[in-house]
Amino acid sequence: MTYCVGLCLKDGLVFLSDTRTNAGVDQIGTFRKMSIFQNANDRFFAIMSSGNLAITQSVKEILLQGQLFKGKNLWTAKNSYEAATVVGDAIKQVYERDHLALEQSGFEFNCNMIFGGQVKGEKPRLFNIYSAGNFIEATPENCYFQIGESKYGKPILDRVLNFTTPLNLATKCALISMDSTLKSNISVGLPLDMLVYEKNSLKATKLVTLDSANPYFAMIHQLWGEKLREAFNSIAEPSWSGAHKSSDISIPAKKMGAVIINHPPSKAQMAKLRTTCKASKPVKKVASKKAVAKKKA
Amino acid sequence: MTYCVGLCLKDGLVFLSDTRTNAGVDQIGTFRKMSIFQNANDRFFAIMSSGNLAITQSVKEILLQGQLFKGKNLWTAKNSYEAATVVGDAIKQVYERDHLALEQSGFEFNCNMIFGGQVKGEKPRLFNIYSAGNFIEATPENCYFQIGESKYGKPILDRVLNFTTPLNLATKCALISMDSTLKSNISVGLPLDMLVYEKNSLKATKLVTLDSANPYFAMIHQLWGEKLREAFNSIAEPSWSGAHKSSDISIPAKKMGAVIINHPPSKAQMAKLRTTCKASKPVKKVASKKAVAKKKA
Repeated sequence: MTYCVGLCLKDGLVFLSDTRTNAGVDQIGTFRKMSIFQNANDRFFAIMSSGNLAITQSVKEILLQGQLFKGKNLWTAKNSYEAATVVGDAIKQVYERDHLALEQSGFEFNCNMIFGGQVKGEKPRLFNIYSAGNFIEATPENCYFQIGESKYGKPILDRVLNFTTPLNLATKCALISMDSTLKSNISVGLPLDMLVYEKNSLKATKLVTLDSANPYFAMIHQLWGEKLREAFNSIAEPSWSGAHKSSDISIPAKKMGAVIINHPPSKAQMAKLRTTCKASKPVKKVASKKAVAKKKA
Repeated sequence: MTYCVGLCLKDGLVFLSDTRTNAGVDQIGTFRKMSIFQNANDRFFAIMSSGNLAITQSVKEILLQGQLFKGKNLWTAKNSYEAATVVGDAIKQVYERDHLALEQSGFEFNCNMIFGGQVKGEKPRLFNIYSAGNFIEATPENCYFQIGESKYGKPILDRVLNFTTPLNLATKCALISMDSTLKSNISVGLPLDMLVYEKNSLKATKLVTLDSANPYFAMIHQLWGEKLREAFNSIAEPSWSGAHKSSDISIPAKKMGAVIINHPPSKAQMAKLRTTCKASKPVKKVASKKAVAKKKA
């Protein structure tokens, strides 16, 4: 599996990806899921991928070769939107080549990408590109995309992140999101590729590959669990007696009654159940014999 | 969708379930997913379900009717393990009745249950019962089960819960796990059914249906977000310059190099790409015409 998260914020972009791949539990690998395209004169792009590795590597190769789609590649696209269509076209090309054979082998054409960057004169932009090569763009209201094993790491993003979050805080947030995913799912693993793109820089100024010995990630890994437990302990326990009004858990919902408590059937009912059960047994056996006879015939 | 979590701890059991169901986004319903079976003289069971509602309701009905499987039902099973086999047998019976028709309509036979309780003389026990009617049991090392939309709420369980956690703390933990799920996924919804079973009580002493007006749940809902943000803010930001050793993020991984930065192809390479592109176009068209001709023939 994979976990990648991309953030599109007021001050720039943040990309974070893990490097674990697996085909079954007995075939675990380490493959990089982030690629960077940089022309410091006029453009900067990064792409992260999840899904079938054979597909995503082919897409990456087509982009690296600079193959032209309608005369455009990542180096000549007029803007980030056009660059996203180039990525989409590369996916469509691999689809044309492989999808029939994949279907015949019982595999889905599975390929998801987070693609973003900046072309000089434009603001930084971020896209979530799907298996069909179509895509959506991040907005100030929906400023992050996740691909792969996304659910474990979503709550922290939903709680602390918004479009105006400074890049350094957003970096911390992305790493905590990744740490929660690593903690709860072994199909996501270290090392991590972390890229912080500062608006208008048109280059990868903050780029690092982190393993468990990285001082900052080690600190996050240790401290976040502790801080969570502290936060947990600081919240009052429920009061079932209603003695503490602010933590009274005993007030029932208004529109829905309580769960019904079912009690055992009476002796007469149980006797009837036993009779029904006994009576129905021979009937079943006969039916079963008939069915066997039919089968033999 | 659904989220249910069940905990099996030193002092007893905790059950928490939401009540939202959906068949597509335009068919949202409220159905209870928890049922309780109590005979204060000798046994107490609770069951929570996720999956196809038509299946899970049928299973529940069979259990409520007290139907006998190998002469046993929930009221007469010798112990919790035997009771879990009764639940499994009820699932198998619905499978026999419905699975062919479901398959023909393109539906999976989808039914997951968390079942637990106590029979006098035994300790409290908790089971995760699958669509095939088979099941696993919680242990002190693996003291919780989740069914349905389980991933958002897993990190907090993994961080703060263990077998010796007191029941009141575990109740808080289950509610925070549910709150994280509610925050990140609209297919899980209020009200909630919460049951805390105290070891050897053989009855539902702490049972409540909570909506957003419940003082304790409202407090959790408001405070947990705040506390998370506080915890988040209390962790240092990454230091890219390496000036702060404890928060230095710039130390690269040992076994894996940095992400390669790809630069634009040379002018000569670009010219070649353009030529290849132009040269290949007519060939493609001819091939395409041939293919059409073949199709027509």
